[in-house]
Amino acid sequence: MWQGVIPAVTSKFNEDDSLDFAEMRRCFALQIDAGVDGLIACGSLGEGPMLSHEERIGVLRTCIEVAGARPSLLTVAEASTRDACALAEKAARAGAAGLMVVPSTIYHSDHRETVAALRAIAAAGDLPIMIYSNRLAYRVDVTVEMMEELADDPRFVAVKESSDDIRRSTEIINRLGRRYDLFTGVDNLAFEALAVGAIGWVAGLCLAFPHETVAIYRLVKLGRHAEALSIYRWFRPLLDLDVSTYLVQNIKLAEALAIHSNERVRAPRMPLAGERRARAEQTILQAMATRPELPRLV
Amino acid sequence: MWQGVIPAVTSKFNEDDSLDFAEMRRCFALQIDAGVDGLIACGSLGEGPMLSHEERIGVLRTCIEVAGARPSLLTVAEASTRDACALAEKAARAGAAGLMVVPSTIYHSDHRETVAALRAIAAAGDLPIMIYSNRLAYRVDVTVEMMEELADDPRFVAVKESSDDIRRSTEIINRLGRRYDLFTGVDNLAFEALAVGAIGWVAGLCLAFPHETVAIYRLVKLGRHAEALSIYRWFRPLLDLDVSTYLVQNIKLAEALAIHSNERVRAPRMPLAGERRARAEQTILQAMATRPELPRLV
Amino acid sequence: MWQGVIPAVTSKFNEDDSLDFAEMRRCFALQIDAGVDGLIACGSLGEGPMLSHEERIGVLRTCIEVAGARPSLLTVAEASTRDACALAEKAARAGAAGLMVVPSTIYHSDHRETVAALRAIAAAGDLPIMIYSNRLAYRVDVTVEMMEELADDPRFVAVKESSDDIRRSTEIINRLGRRYDLFTGVDNLAFEALAVGAIGWVAGLCLAFPHETVAIYRLVKLGRHAEALSIYRWFRPLLDLDVSTYLVQNIKLAEALAIHSNERVRAPRMPLAGERRARAEQTILQAMATRPELPRLV
Amino acid sequence: MWQGVIPAVTSKFNEDDSLDFAEMRRCFALQIDAGVDGLIACGSLGEGPMLSHEERIGVLRTCIEVAGARPSLLTVAEASTRDACALAEKAARAGAAGLMVVPSTIYHSDHRETVAALRAIAAAGDLPIMIYSNRLAYRVDVTVEMMEELADDPRFVAVKESSDDIRRSTEIINRLGRRYDLFTGVDNLAFEALAVGAIGWVAGLCLAFPHETVAIYRLVKLGRHAEALSIYRWFRPLLDLDVSTYLVQNIKLAEALAIHSNERVRAPRMPLAGERRARAEQTILQAMATRPELPRLV
Repeated sequence: MWQGVIPAVTSKFNEDDSLDFAEMRRCFALQIDAGVDGLIACGSLGEGPMLSHEERIGVLRTCIEVAGARPSLLTVAEASTRDACALAEKAARAGAAGLMVVPSTIYHSDHRETVAALRAIAAAGDLPIMIYSNRLAYRVDVTVEMMEELADDPRFVAVKESSDDIRRSTEIINRLGRRYDLFTGVDNLAFEALAVGAIGWVAGLCLAFPHETVAIYRLVKLGRHAEALSIYRWFRPLLDLDVSTYLVQNIKLAEALAIHSNERVRAPRMPLAGERRARAEQTILQAMATRPELPRLV
Repeated sequence: MWQGVIPAVTSKFNEDDSLDFAEMRRCFALQIDAGVDGLIACGSLGEGPMLSHEERIGVLRTCIEVAGARPSLLTVAEASTRDACALAEKAARAGAAGLMVVPSTIYHSDHRETVAALRAIAAAGDLPIMIYSNRLAYRVDVTVEMMEELADDPRFVAVKESSDDIRRSTEIINRLGRRYDLFTGVDNLAFEALAVGAIGWVAGLCLAFPHETVAIYRLVKLGRHAEALSIYRWFRPLLDLDVSTYLVQNIKLAEALAIHSNERVRAPRMPLAGERRARAEQTILQAMATRPELPRLV
Repeated sequence: MWQGVIPAVTSKFNEDDSLDFAEMRRCFALQIDAGVDGLIACGSLGEGPMLSHEERIGVLRTCIEVAGARPSLLTVAEASTRDACALAEKAARAGAAGLMVVPSTIYHSDHRETVAALRAIAAAGDLPIMIYSNRLAYRVDVTVEMMEELADDPRFVAVKESSDDIRRSTEIINRLGRRYDLFTGVDNLAFEALAVGAIGWVAGLCLAFPHETVAIYRLVKLGRHAEALSIYRWFRPLLDLDVSTYLVQNIKLAEALAIHSNERVRAPRMPLAGERRARAEQTILQAMATRPELPRLV
Repeated sequence: MWQGVIPAVTSKFNEDDSLDFAEMRRCFALQIDAGVDGLIACGSLGEGPMLSHEERIGVLRTCIEVAGARPSLLTVAEASTRDACALAEKAARAGAAGLMVVPSTIYHSDHRETVAALRAIAAAGDLPIMIYSNRLAYRVDVTVEMMEELADDPRFVAVKESSDDIRRSTEIINRLGRRYDLFTGVDNLAFEALAVGAIGWVAGLCLAFPHETVAIYRLVKLGRHAEALSIYRWFRPLLDLDVSTYLVQNIKLAEALAIHSNERVRAPRMPLAGERRARAEQTILQAMATRPELPRLV
């Protein structure tokens, strides 16, 4: 159902901490213009848990407005299943093409509870779902066994594989073939994931470097591995910024430097400071100074 | 400011998933009658993140109503600092004696952000605060260095030490003396914590076994270590139920068996089932069958 | 200097626990006949720490005898640097083509100590060295920084990358280009490592399935990724047996079933039993029953 | 059979890396004079794995010579069970009062293998054994279940509990009563362990501060908890030096400063340097400058 590069967009704020829809429109459009295949609103990168439901629907509507025919998904990642279901319903009413769903964010649900939560959210939203399996960030693993169990509901169409273990991608394919659209959710494992058969990339640094991200994806799909690998190697120090506790601040700094956006975040987050900021900035500027020439691909 | 045994109460639900205030009143009163020194509403055990702010204030009001002159605290554990501040204000208006505060629940804030979040919440609620340091459950550690830094604000009066490392208690005392009321938040490290100088116990199994919990606390404070240790050894298999991903379900099962309450929880949580339930039930029944005689202590 | 598939051979025992050189000759020859590019004696798989120095030299000599012109390396993995140096000297005298060196096996040496130990062993043996970086098995990580530091000594020619994180391979290439021959040491990350630029594979399941291992390697090198990936997917449940506390017993069971060898190990190891054995056996038999047809490659 | 404070002594080296028996005699005598209850040779602190069997027997003989009627134990911690058995036999012939046994040091043996290794070593040495359970340093946990299983052999007389989790001590007592002499092996959990019922302390910082160590032990046993705790709080920054990858170097630095010994270690270990050394030195000097007055206890 879905494939390709789908960035998880950052939410943009005005100085008074309210949402800056104009800046979101501008930034999202840069993504679409570079050839991405959809947009995901209010994920970890989008500071979803810091936004009210109403605000999240606002970000989603902005995605839909900009992405047009390409799919716009809303992230559902709530502590309680009742809140998750309520948000899923609102997303459906707002016209989301699908949901990216974290089964539980605070409580570490077990197998039975994880499956039940996912089924309840699917029923509430009645939209196609990308299962977001991220045992590191949320400590709830959606295992291959659970994916197998959930396969009886056609609303579960895709998996965002963020276990941080590249082996998992092959395990999913070995067990389930092409039942799910397999996306990688880890920027600095993306080439490896595509090499073993993933068909999509929920991307982070793409927000600041969309052309490079799209180029890697397309080159791999064209079988031009060496060219893709060469860009990927240049990209790696940047991609590492996505696999960090500070991914939001890192990527907003990259957006500030590379696409002239800003670094505003919601508390408890603060913009990077000190040594950590200096290192991130150096990584970004160094990469910008050595940008590879990209092949024409369309 | 605070000391003694303060249970973190469970929230009670009706069959339709609404709050059961009558049952809460009954259960909280059992605690007060057994001699506990206060009540904490809507912590991890109280399924705080599954309740709306309004519901949480309802539970807090029930605590205040039952606890009378003894302190009733509300737990503040929100993803965003703005929500935490809003809840702190509501708690103050509702008459809370204080707040138990987790600085950040989803994002793993760094030193600077953790301190800033705690200061913001303190300013918003303007109530005495028990800092809840639990790096395991929330992955945000309030370190001894941060406690030292926060000591300039007299609203930070207590620490709930839940690092799962008993060494931390002595480190706090060595660094900060008696600046903070030191509570242990880990049931099965409680005797050890009291032995090295903690003056309070935020207790879990107390909900089903209040007399035994209070007896251990008072015996240690009276220097009757051997008697306290003897009860603690009997209590340990039960106390282990508090240090578990499934602590809410475990303790609600203990409440069902020991004080005739029920096991209803909010999704994604489900009551225990299968082998895990059988083991917990056996532990509880076995302990009930071998209850020690408690000394008169008043 | 080195490249290709180099199996880390298992040591073979008679019923009286002495080394069975005849069986080693037979098994090593199966590897050479299948086209491997060298042999490594007495690694983790070879139960090196369970063998006396004299026995280890015996295994090395058997490798040399069978491998002929292809390189035979001895593993050096000792608790004390003095023992490591003594073994390195013996290996040199016995005609080893090189050493695979673990800097420290019991003590978790720091940066300075790790580098010093590697330099001392290199000086003692005066042989080309494959640095074995395995922070999981030995808890001593040879980091990219250390590799950079050691690059001034031409005896350090290769790295066996066993960090269990596929990202490390690209980090080594990004930092050091082709200074070191980059080998993967993790069977179930081998395709991924070759895809990002590794030129060698220190292989385990190769001992029971040499033709399949060699085919994957050669297909990747020929740019025939899809064919390699197809074999790799079949191979994965077997390759997972290499990434286990019980890798020696797992692989000896595979050798027993696939090449009619035996499962004898030295204490404290015992052959697999019970459920764990049943699962490994099923994995092996299932893979044997579904062996893919291999393309002709020479 | 055993109880009290038993230091795990450091091995002393001459400038040429050979053993310095004179210095060992001097240092061991300081321990005995301060009232310790026995000596343990060649443990982690004694750099056992860096010494040949012959050297280890030499250290053991020195212990026996100095300790006289008090027990001298040799540590057995070998990769292969056959080497462990050989060392156990040598220790018995040399007159050891007992063995402190690590079941496996490199391979992470499972339940069945761990129990079998311990039984084989017990049979070989035919001496009383202190089971050394240290899942952190050796990644082989001797669980309470295994202790229960081994209880049928009267040669297993004691347990050195080094799980780093104070809860384990109560679990052993709850399951096995007083079947084993329960020693703590973690300096900075020692007061806590004695408070819950341990009867012995395999001590580290005791080597530099024997009087303080013995005082804490005896005060706890006399029920004078507050006095013991007061000394323990002073001692804690020092005791933390024992729970470190660098415990050998830390404690040898403490010995250099407090009892005028030296810091020589065997490679790959090197004496502390840089920031790490500065911090350890400051901790030691600070503690020496604030030594508490000790009560007369005999």
